[in-house]
Order: sequence, then C-alpha cells, then structure tokens
Amino acid sequence: MAEATLLSDLGTQIIIPICALVGIVFALVQWMLVAKVKISTGKSNSADGNNGFTEALIEEEEGISEHSVIRKCADIQAAISEGSTSFLFTMYQYVGIFMVAFALLIFLFLGSVKGFSTSHQPCAYDSTKMCKPALATAVFSTVAFLLGAVTSVISGFLGMKIATYANARTTLEARKGVGKAFIVAFRSGAVMGFLLAANGLLVLFITINLFKLYYGDDWEGLFEAITGYGLGGSSMALFGRVGGGIYTKAADVGADLVGKVEQNIPEDDPRNPAVIADNVGDNVGDIAGMGSDLFGSYAEASCAALVVASISSFGINHNFTAMLFPLLVSSVGILVCLLTTLFATDFFEVKAVNEIEPALKKQLIISTILMTAGIAFVSWIALPSSFTIFNFGVQKEVQSWQLFLCVAVGLWAGLIIGFVTEYYTSNAYSPVQDVADSCRTGAATNVIFGLALGYKSVIIPIFAIAISIFVSFSFAAMYGIAVAALGMLSTIATGLAIDAYGPISDNAGGIAEMARMSHTIRERTDALDAAGNTTAAIGKGFAIGSAALVSLALFGAFVSRADITTVDVLTPKVFIGLIVGAMLPYWFSAMTMKSVGKAALKMVEEVRRQFNTIVGIMDGSGKPDYATCVKISTDASIKEMIPPGALVMLTPLIVGIFFGVETLSGVLAGSLVSGVQIAISASNTGGAWDNAKKYIEAGASEHARSLGPKGSDPHKAAVIGDTIGDPLKDTSGPSLNILIKLMAVESLVFAPFFAAHGGLLFKIF
Amino acid sequence: MAEATLLSDLGTQIIIPICALVGIVFALVQWMLVAKVKISTGKSNSADGNNGFTEALIEEEEGISEHSVIRKCADIQAAISEGSTSFLFTMYQYVGIFMVAFALLIFLFLGSVKGFSTSHQPCAYDSTKMCKPALATAVFSTVAFLLGAVTSVISGFLGMKIATYANARTTLEARKGVGKAFIVAFRSGAVMGFLLAANGLLVLFITINLFKLYYGDDWEGLFEAITGYGLGGSSMALFGRVGGGIYTKAADVGADLVGKVEQNIPEDDPRNPAVIADNVGDNVGDIAGMGSDLFGSYAEASCAALVVASISSFGINHNFTAMLFPLLVSSVGILVCLLTTLFATDFFEVKAVNEIEPALKKQLIISTILMTAGIAFVSWIALPSSFTIFNFGVQKEVQSWQLFLCVAVGLWAGLIIGFVTEYYTSNAYSPVQDVADSCRTGAATNVIFGLALGYKSVIIPIFAIAISIFVSFSFAAMYGIAVAALGMLSTIATGLAIDAYGPISDNAGGIAEMARMSHTIRERTDALDAAGNTTAAIGKGFAIGSAALVSLALFGAFVSRADITTVDVLTPKVFIGLIVGAMLPYWFSAMTMKSVGKAALKMVEEVRRQFNTIVGIMDGSGKPDYATCVKISTDASIKEMIPPGALVMLTPLIVGIFFGVETLSGVLAGSLVSGVQIAISASNTGGAWDNAKKYIEAGASEHARSLGPKGSDPHKAAVIGDTIGDPLKDTSGPSLNILIKLMAVESLVFAPFFAAHGGLLFKIF
Repeated sequence: MAEATLLSDLGTQIIIPICALVGIVFALVQWMLVAKVKISTGKSNSADGNNGFTEALIEEEEGISEHSVIRKCADIQAAISEGSTSFLFTMYQYVGIFMVAFALLIFLFLGSVKGFSTSHQPCAYDSTKMCKPALATAVFSTVAFLLGAVTSVISGFLGMKIATYANARTTLEARKGVGKAFIVAFRSGAVMGFLLAANGLLVLFITINLFKLYYGDDWEGLFEAITGYGLGGSSMALFGRVGGGIYTKAADVGADLVGKVEQNIPEDDPRNPAVIADNVGDNVGDIAGMGSDLFGSYAEASCAALVVASISSFGINHNFTAMLFPLLVSSVGILVCLLTTLFATDFFEVKAVNEIEPALKKQLIISTILMTAGIAFVSWIALPSSFTIFNFGVQKEVQSWQLFLCVAVGLWAGLIIGFVTEYYTSNAYSPVQDVADSCRTGAATNVIFGLALGYKSVIIPIFAIAISIFVSFSFAAMYGIAVAALGMLSTIATGLAIDAYGPISDNAGGIAEMARMSHTIRERTDALDAAGNTTAAIGKGFAIGSAALVSLALFGAFVSRADITTVDVLTPKVFIGLIVGAMLPYWFSAMTMKSVGKAALKMVEEVRRQFNTIVGIMDGSGKPDYATCVKISTDASIKEMIPPGALVMLTPLIVGIFFGVETLSGVLAGSLVSGVQIAISASNTGGAWDNAKKYIEAGASEHARSLGPKGSDPHKAAVIGDTIGDPLKDTSGPSLNILIKLMAVESLVFAPFFAAHGGLLFKIF
Repeated sequence: MAEATLLSDLGTQIIIPICALVGIVFALVQWMLVAKVKISTGKSNSADGNNGFTEALIEEEEGISEHSVIRKCADIQAAISEGSTSFLFTMYQYVGIFMVAFALLIFLFLGSVKGFSTSHQPCAYDSTKMCKPALATAVFSTVAFLLGAVTSVISGFLGMKIATYANARTTLEARKGVGKAFIVAFRSGAVMGFLLAANGLLVLFITINLFKLYYGDDWEGLFEAITGYGLGGSSMALFGRVGGGIYTKAADVGADLVGKVEQNIPEDDPRNPAVIADNVGDNVGDIAGMGSDLFGSYAEASCAALVVASISSFGINHNFTAMLFPLLVSSVGILVCLLTTLFATDFFEVKAVNEIEPALKKQLIISTILMTAGIAFVSWIALPSSFTIFNFGVQKEVQSWQLFLCVAVGLWAGLIIGFVTEYYTSNAYSPVQDVADSCRTGAATNVIFGLALGYKSVIIPIFAIAISIFVSFSFAAMYGIAVAALGMLSTIATGLAIDAYGPISDNAGGIAEMARMSHTIRERTDALDAAGNTTAAIGKGFAIGSAALVSLALFGAFVSRADITTVDVLTPKVFIGLIVGAMLPYWFSAMTMKSVGKAALKMVEEVRRQFNTIVGIMDGSGKPDYATCVKISTDASIKEMIPPGALVMLTPLIVGIFFGVETLSGVLAGSLVSGVQIAISASNTGGAWDNAKKYIEAGASEHARSLGPKGSDPHKAAVIGDTIGDPLKDTSGPSLNILIKLMAVESLVFAPFFAAHGGLLFKIF
C-alpha cells in the first residue's frame, strides 16, 4: 500500500509525548540554572540578611557588593512581579467571563446546526459512512476551545513568571560582565520558549487522543472539534496582546512624557512614579502577550493542518502517523531548538557587547539549518511516499518530498523575514542610522523617515511570504500552507527565547537604573536591550509571517468546511467583503492607538500630580506612589481592550450571520492581505525609532556622537520618534496578527453554522 | 424595439458638444470676472506706474493703498507664476520623452498580438462578424493615449495658470473683506473645474467621432482603442501628482524646518529663501497635479463604461445614444455645476469668516441634489427602458431605473465621503480639536492621535464605497461600477472648484505675508486657507473614492478583455498577486516619502546656507536667493519622481508578461483594496494636523487660546505634526489614487497582449 509510513502508529504515540516532556525538562533545567543567581528572597520590605551571593566574584570585576543594591534589586523585582501578577489576574477575571460566555455561544451555534439532534448523520465527505452527530461537534468544540484558552493563559502566565524572576538576576549578573548577564536573560527566554512549545504540543496531543475515545473512526468530526483548540488559544491571545499592549504603552508613554521630556530625568529613574508600571508592562505585554500570540499561531496552524488532513487520504485511510505529521514536525522542532540553545549558552560564550546581536542571529541560522534536516527526516519516516490531499472539492496527488518542501519553504521564509527585520531595525545598519541622522532636522523628518522605513521593510517579507504561499499552495493546496506555517513555527522555542530575551533585558536595565547601579552596568544592560529591540522586532516578524500563513490556511479550511469552491473577487458579495476586510486593520489600529493615547494622558496627569504634590520626590526624600500608576494602567487597559476585542470577535459573527460565507471569505482575505502590511510596517517603524534613539545615546561611532549626547536636539527628536513608535510596535502592530488569525479561526469553527443559517440579509432581500 | 431611446442620435451628437462649449464659455466668463481685479502688469522688476486700482474702495475698508504693496503682490505673483511655469515645462520635457517611448511600447505590444497582421479578424464577442485588425487597435490606442496625455497636461497647465493668476488678486481683494476674497478664489477654482470637465468631455467626444470614421460598425474595436485615452490621462497624472507632490512638500518642509523651527520667523516670511518655492509647489502639486489626477479619473471612468458597453446590447445593436450615456451624464453634470456655482458667487454672499466653510459645503449638497435630478433625466431620455449588459461571459438584463440608481449611488457616496472628510479634517469638529488638545503633552501624542484619526476616518468612506459597489455591481455588473464612478465624478467641476480654491487661498495668504500686509488681512487669508485645507481634503476624498470605483471598473473591463471568467482568491497565482498587490502602496509610499525627506534635507541645507552667508537677510537688507531654492525643488522632484513612476508603470507589464493575467488580477485587486485605505488615512491625517495647527494659531475659542499662542509648546508640537502630514497628504496619499487607477487602466490596454503572450514564467516551469 502506497500509504504506509516507516514510523508505526505506536512510535508516533510514543515520540510526541517524549519530545514534549524533553522540552519541559529542558525548560526546568534552564530555570534552575537561572535560579542559581541568588538574590535576596524577594519579599518586598522583608529584611533578609543572607542573600547567599558569591561576593568575591563580583568584587573582582566591579567593586560593588553593597547589600543595599541587591536588596533594592530584589525589592524592585518583587514590585514588578507583584504588579504583573495582579494585572494578569484582574485581566483573567474579565477574560474568564468572556471565555464562559463564548463557550456557551459556540455550543449553542454549533448545536443549532442540526437542531441539537443527537442522531448520527452521513459524513460530509463520504456519505456512505455515518458520522457523529453535530451536537457532539458542538460539545467537543466547546471543550477544545476551553482547553486552548486555558493553555494559552498558562503559557502567557508562565512566561511572565520566569521573566519577572530573571530580570533582577540579569541586572546583578551584569556586574560580572555582559556575557554572564546575556546568558541569564537568554536562558530565561528559553524557559518560556520551551515550556510554551512543549505544553502546546502535549495538550493538543492528549486532547486528540481523548477525543478519539469518543469519535473512534470519525476523524472528520474529531478534527473539526479540535479546531476549537486554536480558537481558544487565539482568543485569549487577543486579550493578552491588546490588554497587555495598552498597559505597557500607556505606562511607557506616560512615564516618558513627564519624566524624560518635562522633568528631564532619565528613563527608568526611580523618582518617576510610572516606572514600575512601565516595567510591569514589558512583562504583561511583550512577554505574556507575545507568548499567548505565538501559542495561538502554533495551535491554529496545527488545527488547520489537521482539519484539512482529516478529509484527505490520511484521514480517509486512517493513517495515524501521517495524520499527526504536523505534531511530529513540532516534536522534532523542540529537539532541534534544544540543540540550538546550547550553542548560545554552552558551546560559545558572548564576551563583548558587539557579540550579542551576532549570537542571537546565529540562533536563527543554526535552528533553521538543523530544522531543515529535521523536517526531511520527519517527512521521510512519517509520510507515505505519495498521498492525496483535499483541494476545494477535488483530491490532489502529493509526493512526500513536495510536502517536505512546503514545510521547508515556510521555515526559510521565517529566516528571511528575521534577517530583513534585523536589517531594518538594528542600529548596526544604514536604515536605522539614516533615521537617526534625520533627527538633525528635528522630530518631523525623523517621523517621515521612520514611517518610510517601515513601509519599505514590508517589501521583502511580503515576497518571502508570497513565494512560500505559491510553492506550498501549488504542491499541496491548503494543507501545504498549513504545514508551511508550521515550518515557520517549528523553531518557535528558539524564536520565543530570543524574543523574550528582549523585555527581560529591558527590565534588567530598568532595575539597574532604579537601583542606581553604576554607569558601566547601565551601559551593559543598554547594549543587551538594544539587541533586544531588534530581536523583539524579529519575533514580531515571525509572529506576523506565521500569522499570515496560518490565517490563509484557516481561511482555506473555512472555505472547504463552508462548502464554497471558489472565492471570486468579481462577485459583489466577495468584493465588498474584500474592501471592508482590508479596512478592519485600520479601524482596529485606530482603536488601539487612541486607547494608548488616552490611557497615556491619564498616566501623564497622575505622574504630574505626584511630581507637583509629593514633597521631596525629585531629591529622593519623598517616595512616589507607584501603586496608583499601576492601577491606572490596569484599569485603562482592561477597559480599553473591550472595544477592539469586540470588533475582532463580532465581525465574523455579524458578517457570517447577515451576509453569509462568501462575504465573510472576502473579509478574511481582505483583512489578511492588508493587515499583514500594517503589522510589519508598524512593528519595524517602532523598532527602528527605538534603536535610532539608542544609537544616539550609545554614541558608539563618530556619526552617532555627532548627533548626541542625551539631551541634544537630535536626541530629543529621537525620543519623540521612540514615543510614537511605542504604540505602533507594541500595541497596534502585534495585535493585528491576532486580528487576522482569530477572525479566520472563528470563521472556521462557526463555518457549519454560517453555511446552515448565515446570509440572512441576502435571504431577506 | 425595446432598445429605443427618447433622445435621438442626432440629439446626442448636438447636446454633448454644446454642454462642453457652455462649460468652456462659463469658465472664460469667470476668468474675465477674476481679471477685473487689477494688479500691476505683473512683469517682475518692470516699473509700471498705472495699475488701474480703484483705490477709493480699498481706503474705506483698510486704509492701505500704497502702490508699493500692490507692486509687491504683483512681483511675488509673477515670481510664483514664473517658477511654476518653468517647473512644469521642465517636467513636460521629461514626461514628453516618456510619452513617446510609452506610445511606441503600446504600438509594439498591441501590434504584436496578431503579429502586426493587417487582415481583418472575427470579432471576439460575435464571431459571425469581421472586425478591424489588431494592428488598427494598436495604432488607434496609441493615438488615443497621446490625446489623453496631452489633454491631461493641458488641464493641469491651465489650472496652474489661472491659480497663479488669481492668488495675488485674492490677497488684494482680502483688503475689501473676506467675502470679496472668497469670491475671487472660488471663481478661479471654478475656471479650472469647468475648463477641465469641458475639455475632457469635448476631446473624448471628438476622438470617438473621428475614430468612428475608420471603425464604422466595429464598436468593439473602437472603444477598445479609446481606452488608450484613459491611460494617457492617468500616466501624465502620475508624474504630475508625484513630481508636483515631491516639489511642493520638499519646499514646504524645507522652508518650515529652517524658517519656523530654527529661525523662528513666520510661515511665508519673505526672508525665507524657500518661500517662493513653497508657493510654486502649491500650484504645481495641489493644482496641476490634482487637475491631472481628476481628469485621469474622469477619462478612465468614461473609457471603462464605454468599453464594457461596447460589448453589451448598446454596442451590439449600435444604439449610439445609449452608448454615449456616460458622456451625456457628464454633459448634464457641467450644466448642474454651472447652476451650483452661481449659488456661491451670485445668489448668496459670504460675509464673515465662519460662513466660508458652510458656503463650500452647500456647494457639495446643492450640486448633488441637482445632479440626482439630472441623472434621472438623462436615464429617462438616453436609455432604453430595458437592455442587457455584459457580465463576465453572460449577458445580464438591466432596467433603466436600475442604471439610474447605479449612477446616483456613486454620486451620493461621493457626498458622504465629502462630509466625513470634512468632519475629520475641519477644526470646527471634535476630532481635530482632540488632536490639537493632544499637543499639550507634546509632538508624540499629537502624532499618535493624528494617525489614529486618519485610520478611523477610513471606516465610513469604505462602507460608502462598499455599498455603492454592491448596489451598482448587483444591478449592472462592471458597467454599473463604471457609471457609479462617473456619478461620483459628474459634479467634478464643482469638486475641482472647491478643491482648487484651497491652494489659491494658501498662496494668497503667502503673498499677504510676503508683501507684509496688515495682520487683519493675514487673518482673513488664514481663514480662507483653513477652509481650503478642509476642501482640499474633501477633494482628495473624492479623488480616492472615485479612483476606487474607476479602478474596479477598469479591473472588470480588464478581466473581460483578458478572457478570464473568475478571479478566485483560492488559487496560488491569484493569491500571491493579491498579497503583493496589497504591498505595492507601501512600497510606493516609502519611495515618495523618502523622496520628500531627502529633497527637504537638501532644501534645508540650502536655506541654512543662505541664512548663514547672505548678510542682512534677517533684517531685510539682504535679499534671499529664491531661484536656487526653486531649482533645488525642481531638480529633486524630477529626479525623484522616476523610481515611483517606474514602479507603477512597470509592475503591470512585468506581472502580466512573466506571471500572466490571473496574477495580475490579484495584484490589481490587492493594490486597490489596500491602497484606498492608506490614501484616505494619509490625506485625512495630514489635513487634520494642518488644521489642528491652524486651530491653535487662530485661537478662536477658549480651548484654542489655552493651547496657543504661536510659539507656545503645544503650538510647536502642532507644527511638527503639520510638517509630518505634508508628505502624507500632498505626496504619498494622493499619488496612491493614481497607482491604483493607472495599474488597472494599463492592464486593460495591454490585456490582449498579456492574454496572448503573458505568463512566461509559468509557461516555462
């Protein structure tokens, strides 16, 4: 039989959980290594004399060993951790209500497709067989949704925990040298990366096996229900990204506007009342939000691949190993990333500031090369040499080497996107230096050049995405796209590690400043942070690139499931969907940016009030009231995340119910092709402005010094650019990934309902 | 016969040219009325004692009658006119070369479709008849292209001429009161509007009749060849918009950055060496560029409607009156606009500053209401009660009242877009006031709020466009879209009048400042200018709204002509086109914004050099060297317009030749749905920033005064926003209209070539 695979089903059942467990164990080992850096127990205001620090080592490099500094770091870390935890718990309360309500909605809508009938029905793609009732799909979709949502929340929360655990440790290690600090920050990032990748895989694997107990041979129904997992993951990511994004930027912008611009005190100065809120923001937005986002992408890509495969020859012939090919790719990805991580932490050592960025870049290259071999191996053992996949009504013959190419093209497109992002956002290259140079003539030229840079940075990533789409689409239709997305996400553990490294370094720098550590240490953390800005942009590049592929795959799955065979632009229903869909990212960005602006203004008022009313705040004798600022950010972000969240969650429902599946197809395609551009340009523009400012501040070249120092007119112009970039790169830009993915996965889950009851408006007229 | 029309063919042949001539005569009358405002003969540096001014009238209102002021105004006007003329001539030289080269390309490509054979061939849509050879289409398309190009150039040039003729006259009339100045500025705008609408109609009408002498009954070939007219119009508009846009903003940004920010001298101060270049820019960019742009839209909409109609029952049954329905709509439009203009100039009078905006708004409302009746009348007399139109391979039955609705929905969508644009860009409403308020916390929040405003302002226009598309598409397929676009453009004369009014007032203000006229006069011209910013934004809203409809109609015509029946998003060829197409507006904007930035930096250097080296420039004893600044703007814009121009012109050719018509369809759809959003948001963001600044400067309310006065920190922040907005609203935003239209019309013209020889890459692999 042509469909046989080298790997047995039992082998698959063993390999996947083992790889996931290896990932979890590796993450825990990294955590233990980070924990070796001792700081005081960290309970704020508690007096703990013995902090177990090996002071000898420090003294020989820095000459600082005051307990007070360590105590201060610990206190600050505790405050940040407390603020982050408290915000996330507040958010989860609201999100929990949403989760329950939306779960109910899923159950009701999907249950109503066949009028809550419990009788079995002929399968959609093989009417000679009987499949499980639609009501079962409703129940299991709801369960899968809840599982996805909870896993997403846990992923984000764990990431935040390790990040707030690691930031003060990074600061303290910076006293021993930049290399030591780098390793702590990077290991912590790796903890998050591996936990997330492994948990996501494991929960999905277990869910499939449990659902299989009920569904048995009805794989069509089984994997339809599994799509709920992607929806759950992504809907939590929406609130994480948007809420966290508003939080972090309201605090950041608010702190900068009063502190840096009005009071002329440095960033992260402890006299600034919003400084703790700012650092909390990094953890809830850039860490927890990003974690949920990439978990969502991963879950959705897997679900899209599985649901398409379930109606292809794998599903029809019940070839379990081939069916779980997407999970096997992710499993091997964990092993590959594990090996890759060792290159940064053990095989090589970062010794100087200028080695940080190359070390991170090497991570991308090594993981991509190793993973290419990994994919080839998995394709060889887990796929039949030839099989058919479902392509909008017809079956299409695919060779296993073609599917290998689909996965590989996604993987390499990710690398290209990463490199391009680095080129446009790192201050080692001319684009950012040009932007910095334009600060000579003031903030206006800085903004014009920065916007132009962001627009320009879209070109190559789009070509990379287009080529991946063309190759994978041509070889294996929507299944090809889904596995290409998985290919891009297969090195997610490494991607997240270098991404999470950024906010951790940023916080480390903040703690150094707040603890009034020496200038040398602040320089080291700044260097870590500048590299972190670039890696954060790279991470966003991956997130948006994979979101584009995932969203297209989900879109394809939706179209199959909604029984449409063509999405013809030249029909009025589709075209209006297309143009309105292309508008949605603008609407959404308008909301999120305005939210940041409004929340920042509130923060500004509070910070100003404190500067004006608290006696001795400027000379350090009066203590600022950090808690009020944290509360303002929390309240504002919770309140402001609802309208954009509603826009994303309600649009597919409204369009599907009133305008039907054709218009909804147009909306999905339109928001995808338009959103991906804004997302890339927003995050790169923001990253470039941030690093242009850092370039001037660092003054590492003749050119940079001619623009500086801090406080010069060009530097002030650069600070304005940086502030504008904040909501672009950390709120509206990255939230757009979720917009395009979430609308697609939601449409997919509700497809049977829309197909049955949708398009009311056209039915009436 | 069901296809009979009330209006005879002879009637049609008489009515159209008469309406066109009425428009031309009316324009000349307006010109004469403007010319009644006497200024010195205007030869710069020539001494002319008698300027024929009725000084009595002036004295009683202003107490100023110095000959020196009038002389100064005349001199400045002469310098601006000279600079504008010289720039346009320089540009036309380059553009002329392009025109000839591209004409050759059209001839060669279209000629090669049937190997330059001169033998007749069976018609594409009725193979029982013989049609003219493809070579004839090549020849006549080339001729039509050249005619369109020349008409476009003339339209832009005449607009510039009347604008530079009127600006000093507006300044001088401002001494008598704001109402007098308003009328001069508005009449001059009307000259341009009517000349352009009437010329465009007349040339097209004559061309059709001349071509008919050769083509006879082969209307399919005739109207295919006519599409070249649209291509010619739009390709000239590209260079006009891009070149003019770069010119005007390089000068404006450069002048502001040194003058306002560094030297702290007011806008349009004669001591600023870039001040003449800045005023020239308004005329070559906002007037000549806008004129060419809207002429292009008009020509393309007409061509799209005609080419679709030629293969519908009108064309097949040779119903000449119904065939020329699009031209009849435009003819009635001229009469309607004529009547509408009288409401502003004769029936009512603007007496106070706060009556300016309502008067202009009334123009929109009156023309729309009258035109609705006009369309109903034309639909009644010029259409058979029922007919069939061509809808991608099938004929579709349409009633005349349905076609009336198609035209009307486009017209009213235009009005809605106009109103929304006014709401978001006028400082009489809360959005702009909010943006102004955000200047309290500095430039960064101003930019964030401004960008959010622009994004938000996209929502309603897109819904208006979507509804027009849905209605007209459903009733009459692509013909419906084309006539909806014509409906939106039917009041083009009024639209252009209120649009051109803006830069004329802007220049009038500049001249008042340069001639050192009193504060009162400057206040009046500022009020005119603030209303002008809003109307300019409204004009851009019309331009982009109509461009969206036109581009879709052209796209539909292209698809018909390229023999595709569906454009299925779910095929790899189309999807990669869609996503790359959606990227093109970003690439293009990156180019144009960077061009403005670079050219502005050059200007800054020159202006700084002059301030530093010319002795006595600041106290007025040294004369700045205006000519060098004019030259810098000219050279930079000519040089910088080539890459974005090449991007737009080459993309359809490259995609068509190498990837074929399916991918090209995707590119057209993608660039349309993505470009329209960026264009609207860019022009509204820029307009809002400009008026937020003016709001603070005018200080007309308690709130505004709390932000001002000029020179306060919020005002400085507002100036930064205004400067950033300049390239957005006057270069990249409006140029995007042309990008989407031009790529569509170019694809349409070359469709037979692409269908015959395109898609090389896919043929090879």
